[in-house]
Amino acid sequence: ATDKHIAVLPGDGIGPEIVDEGVKVIKAVGDRFNYNFHFSFNLVGGCAIDELQQPLPEDTLKQCRKADAVLLGAVGGPRWDRNPAHLRPENALLGLRKELGLYANLRPAILYPGLEGSSSLKAEVLKGVDLLVVRELTGGLYFGDKSTEQTDTGLKATDTLVYHEHEIERIVHRAFQLAQGRKKHVTSVDKANVLESSRLWRSVVERIAKEYPDIEVEHMLVDNCAMQMVRRPADFDVIVTENLFGDILSDEAAILTGSIGMLPSASLGEGTFGLYEPVHGSAPDIAGQGLANPVATILSVAMMFRHSFENEEVATIIERAVESVLASGARTADVAAAGESALSSKEMGDRIVEAI
Amino acid sequence: ATDKHIAVLPGDGIGPEIVDEGVKVIKAVGDRFNYNFHFSFNLVGGCAIDELQQPLPEDTLKQCRKADAVLLGAVGGPRWDRNPAHLRPENALLGLRKELGLYANLRPAILYPGLEGSSSLKAEVLKGVDLLVVRELTGGLYFGDKSTEQTDTGLKATDTLVYHEHEIERIVHRAFQLAQGRKKHVTSVDKANVLESSRLWRSVVERIAKEYPDIEVEHMLVDNCAMQMVRRPADFDVIVTENLFGDILSDEAAILTGSIGMLPSASLGEGTFGLYEPVHGSAPDIAGQGLANPVATILSVAMMFRHSFENEEVATIIERAVESVLASGARTADVAAAGESALSSKEMGDRIVEAI
Ligand SMILES: CC(C)[C@H](C(=O)O)[C@@H](O)C(=O)O
Ligand SMILES: CC(C)[C@H](C(=O)O)[C@@H](O)C(=O)O
Repeated sequence: ATDKHIAVLPGDGIGPEIVDEGVKVIKAVGDRFNYNFHFSFNLVGGCAIDELQQPLPEDTLKQCRKADAVLLGAVGGPRWDRNPAHLRPENALLGLRKELGLYANLRPAILYPGLEGSSSLKAEVLKGVDLLVVRELTGGLYFGDKSTEQTDTGLKATDTLVYHEHEIERIVHRAFQLAQGRKKHVTSVDKANVLESSRLWRSVVERIAKEYPDIEVEHMLVDNCAMQMVRRPADFDVIVTENLFGDILSDEAAILTGSIGMLPSASLGEGTFGLYEPVHGSAPDIAGQGLANPVATILSVAMMFRHSFENEEVATIIERAVESVLASGARTADVAAAGESALSSKEMGDRIVEAI
Repeated sequence: ATDKHIAVLPGDGIGPEIVDEGVKVIKAVGDRFNYNFHFSFNLVGGCAIDELQQPLPEDTLKQCRKADAVLLGAVGGPRWDRNPAHLRPENALLGLRKELGLYANLRPAILYPGLEGSSSLKAEVLKGVDLLVVRELTGGLYFGDKSTEQTDTGLKATDTLVYHEHEIERIVHRAFQLAQGRKKHVTSVDKANVLESSRLWRSVVERIAKEYPDIEVEHMLVDNCAMQMVRRPADFDVIVTENLFGDILSDEAAILTGSIGMLPSASLGEGTFGLYEPVHGSAPDIAGQGLANPVATILSVAMMFRHSFENEEVATIIERAVESVLASGARTADVAAAGESALSSKEMGDRIVEAI
């Protein structure tokens, strides 16, 4: 049997509920495919602040470093919203990304058949939607110098958007490589008519594009992309962009899948190590009620098998299981049509395990 | 008769065609409402670069300063896309905004009855959409220090996002005041979980909100807003946000109106002076063919009467004329359904003038 160490970070809000379903799927696969999984469960986010006065405890980071992959639920909630910056749950995400060198964030948006009804977009616009946002995750405004200072006329706040050429190069290479296994089209999104960092971004994309003559490249301004993504989403394949633009565009892409409860993500560095988490947040309003959609987490587990365990077969089996369960009409509350009965997180997880 | 001086800046691409229709509407109103309009026509953008080697000639700026209002078409095109930063047409927009102190950019998105079919959103989602993006226009990443430098490991590009307290105060006041004449709801959009400037933004909004007890305030993260705007657009009234977020979200809002050819804008400072322009660009692909939708420009003219000439009556008359012409089934190509015959820019302008 193959040994795999997985650091599990349930976090806050609905995090623990959905992570339970993810772990259930991992175990179900382990039995069948002769894996030997070793789980460590660790504090992160608000619950870590409550217990240890820090969003990302040293021990959690240590367990992540020792693992082959990390499964994360979600962090944050109103309880910690007024905390000073360093005591905010979200800081744990930024710390994990930076400390673990996870510069490539993959956020695929696929419309599963039968979910057209849950999207606010017309069914004909959604036809054929299958895009992948490749977001740079350890640079830009997220990690530049920040300050607030007193001036004669009041406070002045500053954030800095910095990109180094090599940071752009590695994420752009990743995007082109991913496009080779897909529809061979890359849309690079920037704001080159205003930002110096975008002009550098665009020039790097143009240079690297020459190494991938099989890939079609297009440059798009971020404002235009925010519109085109909901106007003609099926025309996109791989979208590569900097950290904050990727944050905005990948959330917007949720609309294409029917619910943000459907969107998985992988955060990768060099090598096979990766962190996997749903794109959605901790949804404190429905926490503890068993209502959350576990699909984003389960699809994140599929990505874990694909990218960290390099087992495309298992990844596909999980994705097919999700597809068939959705096709059978199973729905959690977020994607159930009015009047349709909704499954609990646990029931949804059970159905998917059965289908596996 | 009341004298009004209008600086007209047709610009590039479809700019001249749509501005013609805007001027036609202004003249039609002038005859009826006893105005005496004085127009000056000025170079801006690519055509100014071609003739005078600068996107924003000194004389254009002078004419704008002397005027009561500015009507701008659009700037830019592939011809100038490879120019160095200071010789790019878009620079003229940034220069006009900064030099004229136009810090408040108003971008209303209204769905006119009959245009549901042109939007990619479902008709039931669009029902009741009537929102206003109030975008800060002279601060943030657009105007902060920028640089590209050589380092040991390659190039490094930097942009700076700066906000002063007083810059936030004045735009937030404007948003609250506008909300008082509308549905009394303000959504302030930021990225306070990551950006220092957003935390200052949020604290200023909270302080100023106390002065407007009649207004309901909500804070929303920009990633979430990009999703909610297409998920439940009718729930928004006034959205106030910083420069770049406003750029992205207002373009995304185009989807709510059926076409970006429908979206007007006003850029205001202190006092009644303002610059009015469609949100869309210069559309070089259809320039010179008489296909462009002049509605965004004509609705911008309505905003000119409202904000610069303080004539709500005329503003409403123009808006009603647009509404009735659209209701009669008149369509330019961008919003015509498949098989429907489309009007030229000029025909559309004529119909609206008739309706006035
Ligand atoms: C919680 C927040 C810091 C985070 C981000 O902006 O990256 C989240 O929105 C995400 O997309 O993972
Ligand atoms: C052309 C560009 C500089 C401009 C902007 O980003 O402000 C445009 O997109 C707009 O929204 O007016």
